This record gives sequence, structure tokens and C-alpha cells, in this order.
Amino acid sequence: MRERTRVAVVGGGPAGLLLSRLLRRDGVDHVVLETRTREQIEATHRAGILEAGAVDALVEAGIDRVLRDGDEHEGITLRFDGESHRIDLAGLTGRTVWLYPQTDVFTDLAERAQADGADVRWQATVTQVLDRDTASPGVRWTDAEGHEHELRADLLVGADGSRSVLRHTLSEQERHTFSHEYPYAWYGFIVQAPRSAPELVYTASEHGFALLSQRTPTHQRMYFQCDPDEDPAAWDDARVWETMRARVAGPDGFAVAEGPIVERSVLRFRSAVVEPVRHGRSLLVGDAAHTVPPTGAKGLNLAIADVVVLHDVLTGWLRTGDDDALDEYGRRVGERVWRAQHFSAWMSRMLHSAAGETPFEARRRVAELRTLCASEAGRRYLAEGYTGWGPITTRKERP
Amino acid sequence: MRERTRVAVVGGGPAGLLLSRLLRRDGVDHVVLETRTREQIEATHRAGILEAGAVDALVEAGIDRVLRDGDEHEGITLRFDGESHRIDLAGLTGRTVWLYPQTDVFTDLAERAQADGADVRWQATVTQVLDRDTASPGVRWTDAEGHEHELRADLLVGADGSRSVLRHTLSEQERHTFSHEYPYAWYGFIVQAPRSAPELVYTASEHGFALLSQRTPTHQRMYFQCDPDEDPAAWDDARVWETMRARVAGPDGFAVAEGPIVERSVLRFRSAVVEPVRHGRSLLVGDAAHTVPPTGAKGLNLAIADVVVLHDVLTGWLRTGDDDALDEYGRRVGERVWRAQHFSAWMSRMLHSAAGETPFEARRRVAELRTLCASEAGRRYLAEGYTGWGPITTRKERP
Repeated sequence: MRERTRVAVVGGGPAGLLLSRLLRRDGVDHVVLETRTREQIEATHRAGILEAGAVDALVEAGIDRVLRDGDEHEGITLRFDGESHRIDLAGLTGRTVWLYPQTDVFTDLAERAQADGADVRWQATVTQVLDRDTASPGVRWTDAEGHEHELRADLLVGADGSRSVLRHTLSEQERHTFSHEYPYAWYGFIVQAPRSAPELVYTASEHGFALLSQRTPTHQRMYFQCDPDEDPAAWDDARVWETMRARVAGPDGFAVAEGPIVERSVLRFRSAVVEPVRHGRSLLVGDAAHTVPPTGAKGLNLAIADVVVLHDVLTGWLRTGDDDALDEYGRRVGERVWRAQHFSAWMSRMLHSAAGETPFEARRRVAELRTLCASEAGRRYLAEGYTGWGPITTRKERP
Repeated sequence: MRERTRVAVVGGGPAGLLLSRLLRRDGVDHVVLETRTREQIEATHRAGILEAGAVDALVEAGIDRVLRDGDEHEGITLRFDGESHRIDLAGLTGRTVWLYPQTDVFTDLAERAQADGADVRWQATVTQVLDRDTASPGVRWTDAEGHEHELRADLLVGADGSRSVLRHTLSEQERHTFSHEYPYAWYGFIVQAPRSAPELVYTASEHGFALLSQRTPTHQRMYFQCDPDEDPAAWDDARVWETMRARVAGPDGFAVAEGPIVERSVLRFRSAVVEPVRHGRSLLVGDAAHTVPPTGAKGLNLAIADVVVLHDVLTGWLRTGDDDALDEYGRRVGERVWRAQHFSAWMSRMLHSAAGETPFEARRRVAELRTLCASEAGRRYLAEGYTGWGPITTRKERP
């Protein structure tokens, strides 16, 4: 089957569905192709922190369950040397973050797409990109039954994540990938237990990093630093709790609320930035354009910021048809992307012990944490990064 | 010859002579032993930036030429992507730094010692430390004519620099040395030329780091990042200027004032911290206890802070004779030393390109510099470190 639309969105995760929502509201004809089922995506647990700017963008798009079911956090805690140091995000920057799992963002957007009657095709696997540099690019895709289709559009958007098909059709001459592998990984799990703390606790200890996050009144998300090659199944509950206890222990008696572990996985750390993000009539957004390590909680936030800016640029382009205007997208998102890479790398390095870390480096890291937490300016500099350097929409006004 | 004094100070650089000045003022009998001649020390060019707290300490000790001949700097410039970004130290922290070469600090102290009639022995080389853990420790030393002497004291102070004899008499069991080698080095030179800028300019470029410093109206101090194994003599003036020009160039047309190069050397980067700094009746101060890479301009400032605190602790000890009180010295200087290690490592890493630096890391560094300079909090956090986190004497009041 051969079809035509104005915008073909490859990828139906949060980025693709948010763009779909914005295009739908503008009355722009488009199709979303997603290789997985909705249920498969909903079973994937990802980041849980939304910057206020990302929440604003969702609410502005009519996705406002986060305001009712999400938890607004006015601070985070940095814990080291067995002591907790609160970073008062709201007091320092006037901005907050929201605990609201990426899965819920996806569900909200998927439900909205269904209610809107948006053209989202699940189990639609793109196999080929066609005539990308012409005015009528397209993709070949296969449905769940294995039937082949062709979709032509005025514009292709690659919102298909870190293994992006769209990105992989670009040759090494067409794109540069800036990448970095970190010597860190997280063992992440969900525990059936009450909250250990009201806000996120980032812990640096001589045994390595640990992060206490929240999820619901009955289930919590936790992470501890592990070897990148760790097998999640090799850890029984007792060993997990022994590890967590050793990392958060301190003279203040702070303890983690324990319980049965209901899910576990290992997250590897990688940074990547693809440049440019526009190739002819195709554009990359979110994880397809850049990935960040999880320490800064920036992945989903960058994807939402990309979509907000892309929508803004597309609105102009759909009116004028001036392809050069599409380059504005990359110019406007680039600075935020690199700031987020820096912030994520900084937080990762400051809080983790690398294998073979020297005693000097371990002491330097603690000195950095102490210096930072003792300084109002230091805490505010970190809080500015954590809350996303202000609203997304101000990017427009920047030079 | 066998003598006895209350405090034997090994090392007659700025740290040893400042301690001597303070002890002299208190009427405490002491002897300074320095292996070099005064002229040899005066021919060594070192750091040139004094924190306001270090200037306060010198002035309080009666060494006030810095106020007349030094240059108070209210800011520094960070230059990257060919653009200059001023860090307004005074506006951000209410504190300044002073450009006043270490050689001048030494000369002032040496002249004061002579005028005071202080017992400073030049060309006095300590060969052995005696009975360090008793109440009557001592050193054996050799004078310029090769005659052997013995000096006994109530207390030994090692102010004898990074190759400290006192430190080297400690076994691996007695001390831990936290150390770090950086993949950076500076080619430093003095040029006969007017100032290129009124304040220090720290430049990060794709070709590497460069620093423009000042010295006098007719001579300036400059540095550029080089290979740690570089031979200073292998660079003629033309090659030096070609290198400097490439690093500071930018669309703003900023240029370095060039002239004949009158001195050149290569500085290697190393961090080291010795703990503990007290062993029985001996104590280490300044470079004998810790070294920092030059980027943060912290070496001389730490030495002065050490001496101020040590003098304070010694005053109590001389009154009470309670040896345990000597441990207070290490407790009080430790936090500043580690803060300075962190600050120096941070500045070094942010501004230098390491050999084999990846394109990701190069872009991350620029993103860090941009994020930092765009943020009042970021600039203030850096300015707090550069100006030394407030006056030295407040350390006393800290827990």
C-alpha cells in the first residue's frame, strides 16, 4: 500500500507522540509509525524526573495528568560521607522538578492520540528510507502481518530512539557522532516498599553510587552503581539490600525501606550527540539525536524540549516551505543538548567511583561535593542544571 | 657544633620565612635552615597571584610592599571559542586577588628577616632528622664549607618544599601520599613587552590552553600548554609566538603584545597531599605537605594559609606544651588543601585539552565553559574558589 502525508513520524514513544499531538492540534496531516506495541512500551520502565519546563510543555499540549498524579519535588539530596545535604531547587532557582515516570507520560500521550483519532500505527517497522534529500521523501515499512507499505511525506521525523533507523541510514560522511562511554553502570530495581525519603537521594559512598527515587506510595525505584557487565539475575534480594545498606549508611542512621524486589535491570552509561540533526527533509529528535547517561535525568527532558522547538520550526516551515528554515531547529536545540551532556557527565563523575579509582580522586570528589554543598552559588549552579536552565520556550529569544 | 632552639624551621622560602617572622614577633627562639642562597631563590620565578586572604596575612605580619607594588585584580577573563568572558571576582564575591610575584614575597620576607636579625642560615643543608618522636628532636646539617652541625629543638617544621627532606624521612607506614599526575604541562616564559590585557586571561582553544599574566609594565609572564616532555630550549621565539597567536585568536581581534623572550621553562602538573602533616614533634607546611598544579594559582596561597594556622596552633602549644593540640593544625588546614586540590584539578581539566582528547570531550568542555559563564551562580562558584573561599582566619571559627 502506498500513502502520502505531510509529516511521517518514525517512532511512537513520548517524543513521537508529543509531536503528533502538536501537529494534530494544528491540523497538520501526519502518520506515526512505531515498531512496538503500546503494551510493550508501557512495560519498559525509564526515567522519572520531569523538569518544570517539560511539564509546562506537556500541560500546554493538553497532557495534564502529571499535575494531578505527579509529585512536585522542591529539592534533591546529595549524600556523602554518610551525611545528607539538601539542594533546595525551588529556593535556589524558583523552579521545581516533577516525579512522574516516563511510562506514564507515554500512556497519557497514547491515550490522547487514541481519543484524538491520531493516525498512529503500532507494530509498524520501518525497513528503508526513500529519497531523503528530495521534496518527497518516504519510508518503506512492514506491518504486524508482514505486509509491505510505502509512506511518502513532505518531511520525515526520526523519533525512533537511540537505535534510530533514520539515523542509521546516514553515512559517516553525512553525520558526526560525538560519543563517550563511561566506566559506570546502574543496577536498577523496583521494590515493593514505602518511600525511604520524600525526595531523590543521590549517594556517593566509598562503596560506590546509589540513588533512591520514588514511584508510588507502595513501589519505589532504586539504583546502585554496578559493573557494566553485571548480570541482573545474579543478584538475589539479600545481596541487593546488603549493597544498598552499605552505600547509604551514616552516623545519622538513615536507612532504606526494604521490601520484595519486583523488577531488575542493568543500565549502561553512554553519551552520544549526532550532528547535524537535519538531513534534507529529515530531522532527528530525542534519543535518535542524542543519548545521555541517566545521572542527570535529562533524557526525556531533552526529547520534550526538542519536540517543542521542532514544532515551532515546523510551524514556520509549513507556512513558508523554506527548507533553510529547518536548520534553525538544530541551532536552537544544540546548546541545551550540550549543556545536558556536560551536566550529566559532571554529575556522573562527581558521584561515581570508577573501577581503579585512585585514593586521590576519591578524596577530590568528596572535596568537590563538600565545596559545592557549602556554597550557595555552587548549590544554585547545580540546581540550575538539574531544573533544566529555565523554560524551554525562552530558547527562542536567545541569540 | 651542637645548638638548641625552640623551633627549627627547615626551609627558608616564603613559608619558612613567614613562620620565622611570626615567631620572631612573638619572641620565640628559632632557627631557619635553607639549603640554597638567597640569590638562588630570588632567581626562581614562580606563581604570581595572591588571594586577598594571603595578602591580609602578609600585611598583618608587617610585610606590606604588596599593597604599594602589587596590582589588585578585580577579575579574570576566561577565553574560549575566540571570545572573552570576564569573571568579576570583586562583584561576585566582594574579594579580589593581587598580582605580586612569589619572588617579591620572598624578597620582602628575606629583607624583613635580615632587618629583624632573625637567625636564618643560608646554604644550610639538612642531612638527617634525629629523634623525631621524642621531646627533643633535631637535625644534622652541613654548612657551605661542608662542616657538620646538629640543631636540637622542641619542634621541627618542614617548610622545605615539594622535595622536602623532612617528609622523605617518613616511611610509607607513617604517611600516606595522595597523588595525581595530569596529562598537562605548561611552557612558561617571560617576555619583554607591555601588557596584553589588564587582568589574567585563561584561554581554552582547540590548539590547547594559554595563559596571559602580567608582571611589570615592561615584562609579562605567559604560558601555553605543551607536551610534558617538551624541551624549553627547542622553541625559538617565532615558534612560541606562532603558538600563542593561534591559541588566543578570535573574531574580536584580541592579540598578544609580543617581544623578546627572556626566560623559559616547562612546568609539569602534579597534585600531592601528605597525611598526616604531624609526626611527633615535626610538622609539614606548604609544598612539603602538598603540591597543586599551577592552573588554580593555589600553591603559595596554601603555604601562607598553612603558616597562619600553624602559628596559631603553635602559640597554644608553646603555652600549654600539650602535644595533642598539634593535631589541630592538620584538622584545620585539611579542608582548604582538598578544596584547592579540587579547584586546581577542575580548572585544569576544564581549560586543557589532553593528548588524544575525543571530539566529545572537547565539545563537553566548551559546553561547560559556556554554561558556567552564562550563569551568575556558576561564575560566583568559580570566583569563590579563585579568591580562596574567604579569609584564612575564619578557619578558626569553623567546626
